[in-house]
Amino acid sequence: SALTLEAADRIAAAGRKAAAENGTAMNIAIVDGGGHLVYFSRMDQAWLGSIDLALKKAKTSVLFCMPSSVLGEMSQPGGPVYGIEWSNDGLVSFGGGLPLTAVDGSIVGAVGVSGGTAEQDVQIAQACVQAL
Amino acid sequence: SALTLEAADRIAAAGRKAAAENGTAMNIAIVDGGGHLVYFSRMDQAWLGSIDLALKKAKTSVLFCMPSSVLGEMSQPGGPVYGIEWSNDGLVSFGGGLPLTAVDGSIVGAVGVSGGTAEQDVQIAQACVQAL
Amino acid sequence: SALTLEAADRIAAAGRKAAAENGTAMNIAIVDGGGHLVYFSRMDQAWLGSIDLALKKAKTSVLFCMPSSVLGEMSQPGGPVYGIEWSNDGLVSFGGGLPLTAVDGSIVGAVGVSGGTAEQDVQIAQACVQAL
Amino acid sequence: SALTLEAADRIAAAGRKAAAENGTAMNIAIVDGGGHLVYFSRMDQAWLGSIDLALKKAKTSVLFCMPSSVLGEMSQPGGPVYGIEWSNDGLVSFGGGLPLTAVDGSIVGAVGVSGGTAEQDVQIAQACVQAL
Repeated sequence: SALTLEAADRIAAAGRKAAAENGTAMNIAIVDGGGHLVYFSRMDQAWLGSIDLALKKAKTSVLFCMPSSVLGEMSQPGGPVYGIEWSNDGLVSFGGGLPLTAVDGSIVGAVGVSGGTAEQDVQIAQACVQAL
Repeated sequence: SALTLEAADRIAAAGRKAAAENGTAMNIAIVDGGGHLVYFSRMDQAWLGSIDLALKKAKTSVLFCMPSSVLGEMSQPGGPVYGIEWSNDGLVSFGGGLPLTAVDGSIVGAVGVSGGTAEQDVQIAQACVQAL
Repeated sequence: SALTLEAADRIAAAGRKAAAENGTAMNIAIVDGGGHLVYFSRMDQAWLGSIDLALKKAKTSVLFCMPSSVLGEMSQPGGPVYGIEWSNDGLVSFGGGLPLTAVDGSIVGAVGVSGGTAEQDVQIAQACVQAL
Repeated sequence: SALTLEAADRIAAAGRKAAAENGTAMNIAIVDGGGHLVYFSRMDQAWLGSIDLALKKAKTSVLFCMPSSVLGEMSQPGGPVYGIEWSNDGLVSFGGGLPLTAVDGSIVGAVGVSGGTAEQDVQIAQACVQAL
């Protein structure tokens, strides 16, 4: 099953709604199962530096089929994949990237959220995932 | 004056409506006056290679305050800026990128469209600009 | 409000004056609110490797609306944004980058200073900010 | 002999004066004999895309000890160095980059100018060179 623009639009809208309730301004990126961009929106006043973070969190999640934060645990100094962020033209390995999983269990894409604390980013990404 | 997400959303929706009427599937990217991404959407079935083209057409238009096609006329072999596409981490100098100009004449951003022929891309970009 | 070249020139001159008093040779970069370079000067004998550091400190500060050193506190191993330096084509997350804030509170750009110890860089960046 | 900041500042000021007389807004970059940035200024309202062009024109001129336009004649399709723009992390091979030559004939740096037509850029670069 493929990720439609209609679904991506709905997912991002849910994220923006949750962000507005939190009083945060988020960048939200949604990629398909091949890591290609389907949708992106930047809320007014969101950090410019978070555009790239949102894009790379989504890419990171779908490339390794896991939350970006899980990769981050493994890429700490001394960890099993220390330095992995240099690969794939740049990964982001802290929280805010989550896979999008279809009813049949297949990963159809990922969402990347950036604009607040890592904790806030994760919370908004979860709101996005629940809207799939 | 700054480009809001609300305006970008409306601009892209106008472009998608025009594309659907044409039977084409377009990638539409909208950047602010500094070239930073505000909005992106890929219509279902649109070429994957056109994602980067749409992004770069929008960037190209805003960085030089002109339609991407105008830069393309000047960058042909023997032309005054032959080879300019290699600058700025990559430009795209054929049709489909147009500046977004506010009522006061200032350029607040640009739109980049890719997914059809250059002629179709320009037509959809014009539909976007008219929705500003 | 936009950052003029006249203001950038004045800001950098204040930084060079403070550096000369310290006996240090600094690279000073000033970017606008979109992270685009407005002004750069390298004092005679300043380290060549500090050119890029000054440019990236300024970019880092404006992209995240904070001193580069604050980002650095959060990007340590185990910290919430460990590895963020790999994003945005390279960030620098130690001291010497400071936002430039207008009277109305909006961030109109940033200054990045490099050439001495991190402590000296911060001191010169502060002299720059006070000249805005 | 080395290019001092004092000289670079004087060179750029001469370029800006000539540009103001022409009614153009220019980006002016000055590099030393090793291609490292010494000075940069962007006049208010100058194209953002010309920042990178000015930087790369200066780099191109000093790396090959010739005006950037001379390299451009040789890099046309069928020419002896067709495609050279892809080397050295990106060159710019149209007019506006000129070497800075000391009294003893040694090349101490280069200036790169961008913001108008190629013809205007060359004219301002010549004004810069004459101020060395």
